[in-house]
This record gives sequence, C-alpha cells and structure tokens, in this order.
Amino acid sequence: MKEKIQALINEKKFSEIREEFRNLNNVEISDLLNQFDKSELIIIFRLLSKDQSADVFSYLEPEQQEIIINAVTDRETEVLFRNLYFDDMIDIIEEMPSNLVKKILKNTNSEDRYLINQFLNYPENSAGSIMTTEYVDLKKNMKVSQAIKEIRDTVEEKENIYTCYVISEDRKLEGVVSLKELITSDDDVTIESIMNRNFVSAHANDDQEVVADIIKKYDLIILPVVDIENRLLGIITIDDIIDVIEQEDTEDFHRMAGISPVEETYLKTSAFTMARQRIMWLVVLMISATFTGRIIKSYEDVLQSVVVLASFIPMLMDTGGNAGAQSSTTVIRALSLGDVEIKDIFKILKKEFLTSFIVAVVLAAINYLRLITLTKTSLDVALVVSGTLILVVIISKVIGAFLPIVAKTFKMDPAIMAGPLITTILDALTLSIYFKFATIFLSGMIK
Amino acid sequence: MKEKIQALINEKKFSEIREEFRNLNNVEISDLLNQFDKSELIIIFRLLSKDQSADVFSYLEPEQQEIIINAVTDRETEVLFRNLYFDDMIDIIEEMPSNLVKKILKNTNSEDRYLINQFLNYPENSAGSIMTTEYVDLKKNMKVSQAIKEIRDTVEEKENIYTCYVISEDRKLEGVVSLKELITSDDDVTIESIMNRNFVSAHANDDQEVVADIIKKYDLIILPVVDIENRLLGIITIDDIIDVIEQEDTEDFHRMAGISPVEETYLKTSAFTMARQRIMWLVVLMISATFTGRIIKSYEDVLQSVVVLASFIPMLMDTGGNAGAQSSTTVIRALSLGDVEIKDIFKILKKEFLTSFIVAVVLAAINYLRLITLTKTSLDVALVVSGTLILVVIISKVIGAFLPIVAKTFKMDPAIMAGPLITTILDALTLSIYFKFATIFLSGMIK
Repeated sequence: MKEKIQALINEKKFSEIREEFRNLNNVEISDLLNQFDKSELIIIFRLLSKDQSADVFSYLEPEQQEIIINAVTDRETEVLFRNLYFDDMIDIIEEMPSNLVKKILKNTNSEDRYLINQFLNYPENSAGSIMTTEYVDLKKNMKVSQAIKEIRDTVEEKENIYTCYVISEDRKLEGVVSLKELITSDDDVTIESIMNRNFVSAHANDDQEVVADIIKKYDLIILPVVDIENRLLGIITIDDIIDVIEQEDTEDFHRMAGISPVEETYLKTSAFTMARQRIMWLVVLMISATFTGRIIKSYEDVLQSVVVLASFIPMLMDTGGNAGAQSSTTVIRALSLGDVEIKDIFKILKKEFLTSFIVAVVLAAINYLRLITLTKTSLDVALVVSGTLILVVIISKVIGAFLPIVAKTFKMDPAIMAGPLITTILDALTLSIYFKFATIFLSGMIK
Repeated sequence: MKEKIQALINEKKFSEIREEFRNLNNVEISDLLNQFDKSELIIIFRLLSKDQSADVFSYLEPEQQEIIINAVTDRETEVLFRNLYFDDMIDIIEEMPSNLVKKILKNTNSEDRYLINQFLNYPENSAGSIMTTEYVDLKKNMKVSQAIKEIRDTVEEKENIYTCYVISEDRKLEGVVSLKELITSDDDVTIESIMNRNFVSAHANDDQEVVADIIKKYDLIILPVVDIENRLLGIITIDDIIDVIEQEDTEDFHRMAGISPVEETYLKTSAFTMARQRIMWLVVLMISATFTGRIIKSYEDVLQSVVVLASFIPMLMDTGGNAGAQSSTTVIRALSLGDVEIKDIFKILKKEFLTSFIVAVVLAAINYLRLITLTKTSLDVALVVSGTLILVVIISKVIGAFLPIVAKTFKMDPAIMAGPLITTILDALTLSIYFKFATIFLSGMIK
C-alpha cells in the first residue's frame, strides 16, 4: 500500500490517492500516514477532507503530528484543532514541544484556551486529566422531544451522546438519562420523570485507578466527573479506561522487575534512558546482595570443611526466591484486581502457610530421594539440605505474601515488593538457615 | 446496611426493605445480597421487581446465584432467565453445577436452548464464547424512520442499540450505522445511503486477545462477530473486553512467576489447588538449579584454595538474574501491548546490548571501587568479580530479551520465558564465567 501511494505521489495523481482512501477507514489511513514523513506526509494529509483530517490526525504518532503542525498555516491549525475532540486535543498538546504548543494555543479561541490551561493543571493520572467536556447536558423540566432536538442540534461537537446528564441552573448534577430511555419514552414526558437519580460519579482529583474501578464495578460506558460541590465538569469514556488499565498493568510489570516507570514505548526509548531506568534497582540490589556474601564469609570454616555445601547454595537460593515470587505475584495481582483487601491479611497468611506447607514437604521429599539415590551425597548433608528447603519454602511464601500487604497498608505500591527485593531478603534468610543447620547437624564433619 | 436489612427481615417489614432499595442501584443491591445466604437471600431476592431481579441476579456471586436457582420454582427460573442478557446467561450457566444447568435449560424456550448449546461449544476464550446475540439488525432498503421505529419496538431485548448492523437476506453483514447517525439523518433517507461499509469485524473462532486488539486499535465500543461466510453471529461489547484484558494480564503475571493459570479468585482457591498450581515449576526449577550446583562442585579445588570466592556467588547470581528479568519483562510486555513484533528482533537486541553495556560498566565500576576501598578484598579478586559482572550483565540482558521473542516465534506465550526460567539459565552461565575467570586470573592463588 505504501509503495502504491508513493508511486501516485511521484506521478502527482492526487485524485487517485483520494480514490484509494475511500476504501479505508480513518485508523487505516493514519497507519499509512505514519509511514511517511516530511513533505510527502503533508501532501497526503492535505488531500483529506476537513472532517476527516481531524480524526485521522488524532490517530497519528506524535512525530507525525509535530511535522504537520510545524508545516501547516495558522488558519489550518485553527480548523484542525476546532474539529478535534477535547480529550484528544489535551493528549496531543501534552506530547508537543513548547513552541508548537504556543502555535496551537494562539490558534484556539479564548474559551478553549482557558479550558486547555485548566486541564493541563489537573494532577497527572487524575480523573480531571483524562476527562472530556463534550457531553450532552439537559435540564430536568425539558420534555423528551425538546431533549432529542437539543441532542440532534449539537451532536457534531459531542464525543458521546448515549448518556445525557441532567444539571441544575448552577450546573449541579441531578440525574442521568440514556438515549435509549429518551427514544423509548413518549414525546411530552419530562426528563425529570425518567431520569435516574442513583447514578455514580467520580471527583476530578480521584486517581484514574479509582475511576477504572468504578467503571468496572458498575459496568459503565461513561462516568461523569464532578467537583466537590457536585458540579458537572466532564465525562470519562470507557475506551480511555482501557488505556488506564494497560498503563497501570505495565507499571506493575515493570516495577515488579525493578524498572522505574517508563513513559515511552519500547522502540522509542533510547538505550541511555533505558539504562537509567534499570540501573538504580540493580545497584541497590547488588549492594544488598553483598550482605548475603557476608553471611557466607562468616561461615568460611564450615565451607572449607564441607566444601560440598557450596554446591547447594544456588538451588536453595533459587527455590526460596521462586517460591517467594509466586506468593508475592499472586497477592500483588489479587490486591490490584480488588480480589483481596488489607483486612483479608489473616486469611491470606493462613492460605499461604497451608499452601507452602504442602509445597515444602513435596519439594523436600523429592530433593531428599534424588540426593540419596542419584548422587553420592551423604545422608547427613541430604537431611540438612532438605530440612533447609522445608523451612525456606514456608518462610518465603509467607513473607512473599506479607510484604505486599504491608506496602499497601503504608499506601505504597505493593508491586515494589515483588521479585528482586523479596529475592534479596530471602537469600539472606536462606543462607542463615542453611549454615545454622549445617553447624548443628554436621558438627562432626567440621574441623 | 446489612444489619438494618437483617433487622427489617426479622420484623417482617418487607415494604420497608423495598423502600430502602429505592435509593440503591442494582450493583449496590447485589453487593448487599452477596452478604446473605440461604433463606434470607431468597426472601430479599423475591422482594425485587421482575425487571430488577434479572439485572441484580447477573451481578451476584456464583454461590448466591446457585442458592437462588436451587430455591426458586421452574416458573420463576423461566422468567428470570428470559430477562437476562444472553452473554450474562452464558456466563452464569458456565459457572453452575450440572443439575442446575439442567433446571435452567428445561425452563428456557427451544430457540434459546439451541443458542446456549451452540455458545457453550465455542472454544474457550474465543470471540464466539464471549459474544452476545442481542444486537439491532436493519435492512439496507429501510428508511431512517422505519429503522428508528424498529429500534424503539425491540429495545427491551437488546443489550446495545447504539450501533446497528445492516444485513442482507442471507444474514451477511453489509454495513454499520450508529444511532447517532440515525437520529441526525432525515426521516426518509435510506439506511444504505448512510451506512458505513468500511467496518471491522472478528471471526467467531478468533482468540479473545485478537478481539481486544481490534477494539483497542479502532477505538470501538462494539465489534460485530461473523462466521467465515461473513454472516453476522453476534456482537462483543467493550465492557467484556476489559475483563479479557485483565484476565490476559493476570495470566501473564502468574506465568512470569512460574504459576499455572488460575481460574478462581484468590480467596476462593483452596490451598491444595494453589499448591498444585505452584509446585510443577518449583520442582522443574529446583532440579535444573542442581546443574548450577554441579558447576560449583566441579570447581571445588578453586573454591577450597580461594574460599572468599564463594561469598560473591549470591551477588553475581542475583545481579545476573535481576538484569535478565528486567529485559525479559520489558520485552514480554512490549510484545503483549503490540509495541514490538518478532521482526523488530535486531532493533531489540541492539538496544538491549547498548543498554546492558552502559549498565554493566557502571555496575562493575561501583562494585570494584566498593570492594577495594570498603573491604579487604585483594585487587585480583576484585578484578575477577567485576569482570564477571560486566560479562554477566550484558549476556543476561541480551538473553533476557532474546528468549521471549524466540517463544513468540514458536507460537508459545512469551511470558513463560520470564523470571524463574531465565534466572536458572543465567545462574549456570554466571557461575561458569566466574570460575573460568578465577582459574585464569587467580592461577597463582590456586593450590
């Protein structure tokens, strides 16, 4: 497709390009535009109709958007931004370098400019920062026929007309009515008599995670956002919530692997930025791992006498780390999905203890049998290793489940308690238990 | 609230309970009902109006749903299921024990029964298994006024009326038209002239992940599902896609921690089931970790001579494991979000190599300086440890990024290549490099 369009550009057959576009939807057109840059991009973009260009523009990559804003006239900028939905406009402005933001603001009317500035001031990741203002508002004394007329007349500028909000003179939110209810009600019934008063709403300063939880719990497509005096400020639509959920999950995945939050997608992040995001935790964990080294060093005499003990260190450390990671991951995910809460702590610890007990006994039995049958390990050493395994698996699973809940209690993200951090803590515990057992049960072998 | 309702039940003040419910929405009522069981649950449930009871029922926990189906008459079952949306009905039936499924099927009409059986036969996690059949279908020669009348007349049984599907005589999908377009078009325009022919659709056998990707890419609220001959079978709404995304992410989180897929929520899974889900990988990893032990054993003489080398094993193993986990997590998540694809493999490896080079040099420098200033480690040993660190971090990051892409190439889930598995592979590599370096550079110290 790209080659075809490229050829048509070279031959200046612009009307044929328009013809090709007739068979594509706007997402597909923007996919295509993303493969061009500079002058060709501008040529193709100008072939789009005014209506279409705003929608296609909203799907373009930030780089392509910058190239276009840089190239077009003030007048074209004004038309383009007038046709964008408000939340797309905010998203785009947030990505632009400051000189282009100036160009955009210069070419929007004063009302929009005021709103944009206000939106850019909401805290990052708050309900206010992701809402849009293009909702339908009705008055409760309107008749259904009036309401439908109102919707028909203003539909062009609304992102969503399927849920309408009933507000008072001072913009307080009084009720919600769906277009479904409107079109199935009689023409001269009042809005007041059909509106739903038991609606849910979010506050502008609520975190986007709270918003996502409400939308999921109540199976909503749209959620109204109000200020502390219950005045309607905007709406959040479910498609933006999908982005929120993916963003929060990505943050959890990264945090659980000891990576600082990433803003850009993988291919757009430079190696230098990636190194910076990863190095902090690696340094912390490397230094804390040396404490584990100190434990080994303090048992140098035991190791020198029974040097075979060293060969079980990796297995014990890994099994403890893996067992702990399983519990912490399960609990972190359950907390984030709302399946468990802080108050369930005793239920969780009991369940983890039971689970770990079963797992520990099975693992230790397999390990013991393997050591005495398949290797030449002495019975004493096999017993020390398997005994350590039982204690390590139980402790790892209980601590792995406990720490994320502690983090949550202190209003920290439970995800930081995952993998790397827990592994480091458990390594030290594992080795202490191991060498303590060795000193007690292998005293005869230690010189 | 629970106490209040309990008191009202005891005093048999049922009309006052109805009064209380007037201020609650259906999700809140079902939250309340979930706190009751057996006889009280049935009493309250029967206080709900017919319209309300189906909606409230769909939000209840499976346990509460079972109690109700067990208790109500055949007639009540029939009314209840007639008022449920089709996809909710399928979800509920899938959770029920077989005796209750029989009771439900006995009390649905033959048409519904046929559909239910068909739906239960779609592969798990396919588009067919999550779709619903309550869509609006129009014919292209209808006038707008006829279409709106059709919608008004059938609205009660439709889950979503905001996107309508235009189908031919033999049910082939020809176009899509939104209610927004309908209510803003003139009454006597034909559907054919306003319908959109460039729509996207999914096949019934497509995986739900594919469906989620399409809905996200095209910012849709609803997606039509067709068979191989393009006949319309059903629709999938965006709120079901949120469940899909969360379910897939949960599966990735668990798989990355070496836990087999979990069906139930945390608190509902028994300790025995949890142990079974976790033990398989722990056994595999425990046994493979013993190969690492064998590497240590084969260098017993080196260790016996320079026993201090043992104290750096945890730090080297942990740092390698953490560095690898960072890369594998980043790449796995980027693959799952569609930010990178298999064909980007060389870009990814180049980026990981550059990143790891920066990280490795910084880590090794910090480690070397720390060892020679803060500890009594000899310069030679510090050099061997730091040199190992450089090589280990680079190899870990490159392998960590490489393996998930390999998994994807072989159509496996990249998530299985995360944490535990990579750690085990990297442990063996780390120790081999470490002792190889030690034998070469510390030959003077080895007896």
